[in-house]
Formats: sequence, C-alpha cells, structure tokens
Amino acid sequence: ESEFFEGRELEILALGRSIGTGEKEITAEVIEVKNFDELKERQKEVKGKIVFFSRPHDMGTVNTFQGYGDAVNQRSQGAIEAAKFGAVGVLIRSVTTKHDNVPHTGSMNNYVDSLPEIPAASLGFLDADFLSDALKKDSILKLKMKLNCKTLPDILSYNVIADYKGTEKSDEIIVVAGHFDSWDAGCGAHDDGGGCIQAFEVLDLFKRLSIKPKRTIRCIFYINEENGVKGGIEYGNYADTTREKHIAAIESDRGVFTPVGFAVTSDSLTLIKLQNWLPILEYAGIEWIKAGGSGVDISQIKNTQALIGFVPDDQRYFDLHHSANDVFEEVHPREMELGAAAIAVMAFLLSEEL
Amino acid sequence: ESEFFEGRELEILALGRSIGTGEKEITAEVIEVKNFDELKERQKEVKGKIVFFSRPHDMGTVNTFQGYGDAVNQRSQGAIEAAKFGAVGVLIRSVTTKHDNVPHTGSMNNYVDSLPEIPAASLGFLDADFLSDALKKDSILKLKMKLNCKTLPDILSYNVIADYKGTEKSDEIIVVAGHFDSWDAGCGAHDDGGGCIQAFEVLDLFKRLSIKPKRTIRCIFYINEENGVKGGIEYGNYADTTREKHIAAIESDRGVFTPVGFAVTSDSLTLIKLQNWLPILEYAGIEWIKAGGSGVDISQIKNTQALIGFVPDDQRYFDLHHSANDVFEEVHPREMELGAAAIAVMAFLLSEEL
Repeated sequence: ESEFFEGRELEILALGRSIGTGEKEITAEVIEVKNFDELKERQKEVKGKIVFFSRPHDMGTVNTFQGYGDAVNQRSQGAIEAAKFGAVGVLIRSVTTKHDNVPHTGSMNNYVDSLPEIPAASLGFLDADFLSDALKKDSILKLKMKLNCKTLPDILSYNVIADYKGTEKSDEIIVVAGHFDSWDAGCGAHDDGGGCIQAFEVLDLFKRLSIKPKRTIRCIFYINEENGVKGGIEYGNYADTTREKHIAAIESDRGVFTPVGFAVTSDSLTLIKLQNWLPILEYAGIEWIKAGGSGVDISQIKNTQALIGFVPDDQRYFDLHHSANDVFEEVHPREMELGAAAIAVMAFLLSEEL
Repeated sequence: ESEFFEGRELEILALGRSIGTGEKEITAEVIEVKNFDELKERQKEVKGKIVFFSRPHDMGTVNTFQGYGDAVNQRSQGAIEAAKFGAVGVLIRSVTTKHDNVPHTGSMNNYVDSLPEIPAASLGFLDADFLSDALKKDSILKLKMKLNCKTLPDILSYNVIADYKGTEKSDEIIVVAGHFDSWDAGCGAHDDGGGCIQAFEVLDLFKRLSIKPKRTIRCIFYINEENGVKGGIEYGNYADTTREKHIAAIESDRGVFTPVGFAVTSDSLTLIKLQNWLPILEYAGIEWIKAGGSGVDISQIKNTQALIGFVPDDQRYFDLHHSANDVFEEVHPREMELGAAAIAVMAFLLSEEL
C-alpha cells in the first residue's frame, strides 16, 4: 500500500524453519537496516513493522565464502533479533553474488521460546534494490507479506551408504561424502547433488580401474544437512560406537567447480603428511592443501585422523546457492569430473599411506 | 549421396585462409584418418577424396591447452598434408571440449606454392560422430562440400593504444594487452574481447584509485592476432626502434575465467623476483608464477625483461574458442574483474619494483 508503488509484487522465498503468515497476510510498514547494530540503535522504530535487512554480499571480497559468511547472520538470526524489538516480520536481501531477482533461501536458527515467532523470507536482489529505493521515496509504504510455509514433524529417513571393501584392513574406513537433501527452489545440482556424484564416482573409478585399496572406502550420501545436520549427527554417533576405525573423511559440499585445494582439520604432523602428497594431487588440478574447515556432515565424526573439505573454485557458487538457479545445466561435466578424480586420488592416498 | 544418408546436412565452418569451393560444390568420397601418420600410410586411397581428420581433443588431459595443442595440427596443416596425396578437400573434427554441434574454426597455415590449394572446414562435434558412423555403414558415400569463403586483400588497420603516463620514468613502458580481432562466428567475448577489457581496466583502476606508477602503463588492443599477428609484429618493430624502453609486458589471451597464475618468459633471476611477489598477488586469486609462454602478440617485443601471460582456469575455454559459443553471456563478471585486478597488481609491481 503506497501512493507510488501500489500493486507492485516482490520475489520472495521463505527461509528454512520460518513460520508462515497464516490465513491472513501481514500488512505493515517497513524499516530498512543493514545489520544488528543498526537494528539496536533504531529499536524504538521497530515495533509493529517488517524489518528489512538489506546488507549485500560484499562483492569486494575475493573469497565468496567470506562474503557469504559476512552477510548471512541476517538470514540465520534476523527473525530472532527483530522479534526482540516487536517486529512482525523479516525480509532479507538474498545473500547472492548474482545481479538477478532470484531469491536465495537457507536455514534460520531455531526460534527462541521467550520471543514471538515471526515469519522471515529472502528477497530477490533486484527487488531488494527496488524496495530500498521505494522506501526513500515513501518511507511509510506498507508491505503485504504472505508465506504459506510450515514446518512438519520429522519423519524417519536414511543416509545412503556404499562400501568398497578394503583388501587388508576392511574395518578401517575412509569416508567420501556429500549430502543429498537440498533447498527445493532448485534441484540442488551444486548443493549438493554434484558432491554426492563425486563421492560415488570415487568407488566407480576404483572399480573401473581395478584399484584395490587396503582400507574400506565408504561413500555416504548424508540426509538432512540443510536443516539440522541430523544425518551427519546420526552417523557421528554410529562412528563413535562401532568397532570400525574411522581413519579419515572427505566431503564435497562447496559446489563442483574446478578443483583448487583441500582444507584439512587434523594435527599438524598429519597435515604435513598430506601436503607431501601435493605433487601427485597436482595432476588432478589441486593447487594447495591447507588447514581449514572440512564439511558440516563429516565434522560430526570424532576420533578420526583427518577431516578434509574438497575446495573448488568459488566464484560462481553463490550465484546459485539455495535458489532456483541451482540446476543441472549449471554443472560443467569436466569440472565435476576433475574434482571426482582429485577426491579419488586423495582417498587412495589416505587408504594406503596414512 | 548415399544409400542411407541422402540429404543429411552437416554443420561446418570454413577454416581461416581456406579457399572457397567456387561456383560449384565439391562432391567426393570421404576418407577418415586420425592423424598425418595414418594419412601417409593410406596415401594411395586419398586421391580425389575429401580427407576427414577426426582426432578429438583428448578429454583425458587435465590442461585443456595441452589437449588443444595435441589435436590442432589437423586444423593448421591438414589441407597441406592432404593435398600432397591428391585430396580435393578437408574436413576436421572441431577441436572442442564441448559435446555439441557448434563448429570451431581458426587459422590454417599458408598454402604451399608447390601443392594444389584445397578447401578446408571444421565440422561440429556431433556431426563428426555422425560422419564417422555413417562411413562405417557406407564407406563409398559421397559428400557435397560448399564454402563461399575467400581471402580478401589486406587493408590498413590499427592497434589501439592508451598510455597512463609514469610520474618518474615515463619513457619506460609496461604493456598490458589483449587483441581485438576475433573469429566472427561468435563475438569473441573470451577470445579476446574480455582480455582487452582487462587490459583497459588496469588503467581505469589506477585512475579511479589515484595510483600514480613511476613508469608508463600502456594498454594495447592488438589488431589481427588471429590471422597473421600483424598488429603484434608491427608493434614489435616499433618497440625495436623507439627510444622508449620496454620493461615488461602482460597479455590476457586465454579467456577471462577465474585467475590461476602467470606464465613468464624471462631470465631466471627475474622469474625469482616475480615469484617473490606471490604473497601480494594471492590477494587477487593468483596461485603460482611459473616459466612459460606469454602471449603471441607481446612475444613480438624483443629486448624486454619479462613477457607475461595471464593464466585463468582453462576448463571451459575450449567449449567456446573460435566458435558461435564465444558470446558475452559466457563471461562471468566477477571472474573477469578478478583477473583485471590480478593484472593491475602485477603491472604496478613491474612498474615500481622491477
């Protein structure tokens, strides 16, 4: 409802775990803020309004995961922070690197018992620009917000696991993994269908090339990474109690673009050992092996020697991530295959040499 | 003309410098060979036929420039080799990494005076598969080949040059370059419009950031790289005779994908000096600086300390190269900009530190 912008529709997508708006929409004025500090400063203006968190992914950061990390708290925590000051809803500028109007979703943190639950959605990048400009012209415009989402009770589901049995130490396990849930705006081709294919391709490559590793190579497609990591946690519990020994795990969950490196969580001696394999891994396009975070699913495995994240080129990942852009056509076959080869070589070295 | 495949049309594109087929098409049987060795072995079968060189870009090579180099002599030299044994025309499987039917062209070597000039064209990848299969079923099928291309006389054209004057040593020159001719099946967005933009962006970045280098940064858009390197040769002659001193040159002519490294032609002490700058260049995504070829245009500059090729990720380049696929939409803005930043940092270091 606005003198100037009556009837204009905006592209939005509910955030994961948001409540819906129920039978009737929310109609409210909008307050635009960049971050939680500004929200706090202007807390007296918030009551009864929709808070619009408009901070963009900083395009000046070279590493897009850093730009994502710097902006994403408005998605994960925005609805909780805004509820503290009486907001009735939240919109966030999609955390994306692409100049289009496709909203990007993702999980928000659980609502806090002591605060009202308010609905939250992401807004297409171009429509976020539009709304920001519109508010400059008409600061008391009212927005109608309608979300029909709801969170259903959990149901039983499963991780999918395939073993390629080791010849000498079959109860010693090297995990290769992706997760096969996704945000269903797209089909999750990069996040994380392609990662699952790469994990599975490790077994297929060994089979086709008649490679017989000493240790067992275990491919895991984890369920429910996106909305609670329940598959990862469940497998982590299993790994704690089985008589099997988990030597190492590799996860591909940063898109399936051209391979760049491996990020390793381990003690420093193990890291150095892995770094000594770099001349071999360079044949599959790997430029570096560094200390760093692995992947959220495999990080639930404790008592293991190395947790390893496969790191591809990241320039295009947040064009697609958690949106309708994340489709099969955006996967480049050579780039995906090259990553599968890199992971296969790493898995073999872990099996034979660690 | 075939019992089985009558009327089937194939996607072809003339090679650069090929003669046309004139008023009437060529109609002839086809002999398929993989390489010049096989051509020589089967030379007695060649007379009066169209030679079909069907060797693909080896998809098993990780570096696509190597795969390209391994297959491209059928394009550059095929018409000359086939003419030796009486062939009337040449078709080559396009040297591409993409599984589509878009033919990729490129320059062929000059015809040899002592041999007949025969027309030569590239064939779409899928149609190359089709023709190969068709020949297995009907080895005496006849192909009609019609090319209306011709090589016109040279006309006067120009390199485009812009100087950002050095503050202290303005007659000492750092060249940043691309070439602005292209094969006109596409618009040459990656080869080499994007490279030109990156070279130009170096000057614009310095201007916007009020950076004043000691030496002159010279942006050159070379004319006629694709079909004789005449712009490069002409500038090389100029560089030999001017009182200006050419300190170093950087060329972007391998696509404008995510930056990976710089390939340097220099003495080994200079190379080590450049490698010491790597920690700075890493901020713009550069992973390595190695000895290697620079770029065909700048390589015409003699008496210079370092000739440097900007090396981006190469996995997608030969999907597009010299074909109708090489269009603006295939350029990723962030990837191109990141390369421009890397080249700008390198140009500044060359200006101030070399």
